[in-house]
Amino acid sequence: MPDSAPTEPTAVPRAEEPAGADPAALAALVALVAGLKFDAQGLVAAVIQDHADATVLMVGWMDAEAVRRTLTTGRTWFWSRSRREHWQKGETSGHRQYVRSVHADCDRDTLLVRVEQTGGACHTGARSCFQASLPAVQGSPVAAVPAAVPSGEAER
Amino acid sequence: MPDSAPTEPTAVPRAEEPAGADPAALAALVALVAGLKFDAQGLVAAVIQDHADATVLMVGWMDAEAVRRTLTTGRTWFWSRSRREHWQKGETSGHRQYVRSVHADCDRDTLLVRVEQTGGACHTGARSCFQASLPAVQGSPVAAVPAAVPSGEAER
Repeated sequence: MPDSAPTEPTAVPRAEEPAGADPAALAALVALVAGLKFDAQGLVAAVIQDHADATVLMVGWMDAEAVRRTLTTGRTWFWSRSRREHWQKGETSGHRQYVRSVHADCDRDTLLVRVEQTGGACHTGARSCFQASLPAVQGSPVAAVPAAVPSGEAER
Repeated sequence: MPDSAPTEPTAVPRAEEPAGADPAALAALVALVAGLKFDAQGLVAAVIQDHADATVLMVGWMDAEAVRRTLTTGRTWFWSRSRREHWQKGETSGHRQYVRSVHADCDRDTLLVRVEQTGGACHTGARSCFQASLPAVQGSPVAAVPAAVPSGEAER
């Protein structure tokens, strides 16, 4: 229920969560989050993508609580593996991510969060964290076809 | 060096790697892969994105060997955490991913691989693995402003 009232976390600065929980909606949310497959560290990877131009901005890690906050506050929340604490994107930088949609993958162990990003998503100030180009051999369906095989789908 | 000759892995079916390694290029590649930050399981997350329309197709996991193969064969390789083996995307499904570019993020612990995807990327046959929409409260820079504050950036 996208418009249902979320719950208030305790002792979270700038949570921006409206008060007044609907118990049924909360139960549904808890069940939904419990259906995700968290790894041994209790985390799922979350790919953050610009909703307007589809740029992949960053990848962060969310535990169940960060997923719950992301689904209910309209802002992205993550779990910092190094600092071992929750953090809200933009909390210190001001470069915030406003949630537009959240999808789980077929294994339910990864999320795709489309956002409206203000400022750069990367702590370096860059729009995307993926700035380091690695040297990669480019593949092609055409080049992969042996010379004697005429069709692009026929090599197997 | 995108066009340099990669090396041949041993006992890998359908590796499609040309023979004839350039020792200097190989050393550079080994150093580059060693510069990535693999997690406690020896893995990095790899976001796979369609190079043409920017759809996020899937997220897979790569160990150092899968990264090396992905950089040198023009096709994507992953490490299966459940089967504990390397697998090449499309090896059984025929739905292959031809590499167009590979980028590392600012922490060098996540990769973004842009590909030309043939067929559906998901094992369900869907184009993208991210089909399950989760109910999320949408955020907005405008909506986040308290009523008494006139500017969209003034809530802090």
